[in-house]
Amino acid sequence: MVFYIIGLGLSDERDITVKGLEAVKRSERVYLEAYTSLLLVPKENLEGFYGKEVIVADREMVEMEADKILEGAAERDVSFLVVGDPFGATTHTDLELRARSQGIPVRVVHNASIMNAVGATGLQLYRFGEAVSIVFFTDTWRPDSFYDRIAANRRAGLHTLCLLDIKVKEPSLESLARGRKVYEPPRFMSVATAVQQLLEVEERRGKGAYGPETLAVGVARVGSESQRIVAGPLAALADVDFGPPLHSLVIAGETHPIEQEYLKQFMVDKVGLAAAGAAADAAGSGGVAVPQ
Amino acid sequence: MVFYIIGLGLSDERDITVKGLEAVKRSERVYLEAYTSLLLVPKENLEGFYGKEVIVADREMVEMEADKILEGAAERDVSFLVVGDPFGATTHTDLELRARSQGIPVRVVHNASIMNAVGATGLQLYRFGEAVSIVFFTDTWRPDSFYDRIAANRRAGLHTLCLLDIKVKEPSLESLARGRKVYEPPRFMSVATAVQQLLEVEERRGKGAYGPETLAVGVARVGSESQRIVAGPLAALADVDFGPPLHSLVIAGETHPIEQEYLKQFMVDKVGLAAAGAAADAAGSGGVAVPQ
Repeated sequence: MVFYIIGLGLSDERDITVKGLEAVKRSERVYLEAYTSLLLVPKENLEGFYGKEVIVADREMVEMEADKILEGAAERDVSFLVVGDPFGATTHTDLELRARSQGIPVRVVHNASIMNAVGATGLQLYRFGEAVSIVFFTDTWRPDSFYDRIAANRRAGLHTLCLLDIKVKEPSLESLARGRKVYEPPRFMSVATAVQQLLEVEERRGKGAYGPETLAVGVARVGSESQRIVAGPLAALADVDFGPPLHSLVIAGETHPIEQEYLKQFMVDKVGLAAAGAAADAAGSGGVAVPQ
Repeated sequence: MVFYIIGLGLSDERDITVKGLEAVKRSERVYLEAYTSLLLVPKENLEGFYGKEVIVADREMVEMEADKILEGAAERDVSFLVVGDPFGATTHTDLELRARSQGIPVRVVHNASIMNAVGATGLQLYRFGEAVSIVFFTDTWRPDSFYDRIAANRRAGLHTLCLLDIKVKEPSLESLARGRKVYEPPRFMSVATAVQQLLEVEERRGKGAYGPETLAVGVARVGSESQRIVAGPLAALADVDFGPPLHSLVIAGETHPIEQEYLKQFMVDKVGLAAAGAAADAAGSGGVAVPQ
């Protein structure tokens, strides 16, 4: 039969396409990939909507037990659900190649992902340069390769989508040292943390790739009823409470009049700043589906 | 009530999301934007699937009669359907701003677009630079601003998505000169034509931004059952018959091992070249929904 890799879109169980839903209903087993991104609703919502069990596939299962996921897919339909679009992360391409090598037909059902839904800011997609990832800094690990990329994009007048770190079911360093895995609680980087890290790196590197006054746009829960988009000087976005995850950030390049016109509705001086202090990084709050 | 702007995704009536379908079913009027992109099925398929009339909105209607589209949306739901994701083209942002200025609540339902579905090539989305548009050359108009952008992307090792021209309901120059609009038949640029134009411009500009041997990936009807993806030297793709529209083309930058591994299945020397000659530009064939 068919191994379906199905994008769920951005926010809840009703963002799946009709084509995707039909495939799920036909499937004997349904997996949910839950470590590169997260849906904004618990998996029970999916199960209720589909009328069948959803098996959460964490990193270990996908990497170590791929054959178990594919088991029987030559005879019966199996669905593998991915938040956003299936090609947002490379793990699925691995699973897909493995299925094909076993002669199992694979079909991909596309959906929206942050890579195109960021158009909701009004910044035009064809004016984005390379996207970057910003990971949580630790005391000893503060990778800043994003800096040169943002600099290159801005030199060319292009916008930069910053994908913010998601840590789901990561074994703690301490537990690894002890040889027995204990998992950290899930963490999602907020716009505020991203802004702090970006400004720290600018201070260190000092090339003026961007600064506290650079126009930026923070987005949260894109595509959901509670979507929040706020534009303003980069530093000011650190004081905005974007609420529960997931957050992303755009560093603007040159903006055209039609982009400026659309951004007006989101400007920070219109919506007002949050009461006090930066929003703390949300941790497993807001009804997010978290693998058990 | 609500003015919905709903992405239809890439290929047929079942690529709409469940959320989008529910909004359509609730709507008193349903418009289909049909001049910046086209669905791969006739609008009658949509009407049959929704159980209601779909009004084709051409450029003139959206630009000149926007208020008619929005009429009554304060009291009743109205849906405006867009192929791909709603933020793929800027005309919808205009319609959205107009709705908001009239106090009509607007909701956007996202979907896949070529901007993220091009990940189906296995080339990773975060390694794409700025996207470019390639328009049909005429005897007197051969715009090549894409050249510098591709050059900049390739210098940075990045891939370039080339969006190929679509001409739907364009008045002919001759008819404009006579003061009475007569519309040209719809035209869609093929990968073959894009390759020819690209190589012509490289010959003229001569900076070596790319050449006949540069790795490229042609895609057609992404997300549909008849999806076709072929990778190979740019010049060789001009000899591949990609079939009916829509086509797009990626000029690769540096490829990583995982990208190379995935691309193997699409290489031109595996799939074989089409019998003879380049595929002609398809014109209104293949069951494409064309505004009347």
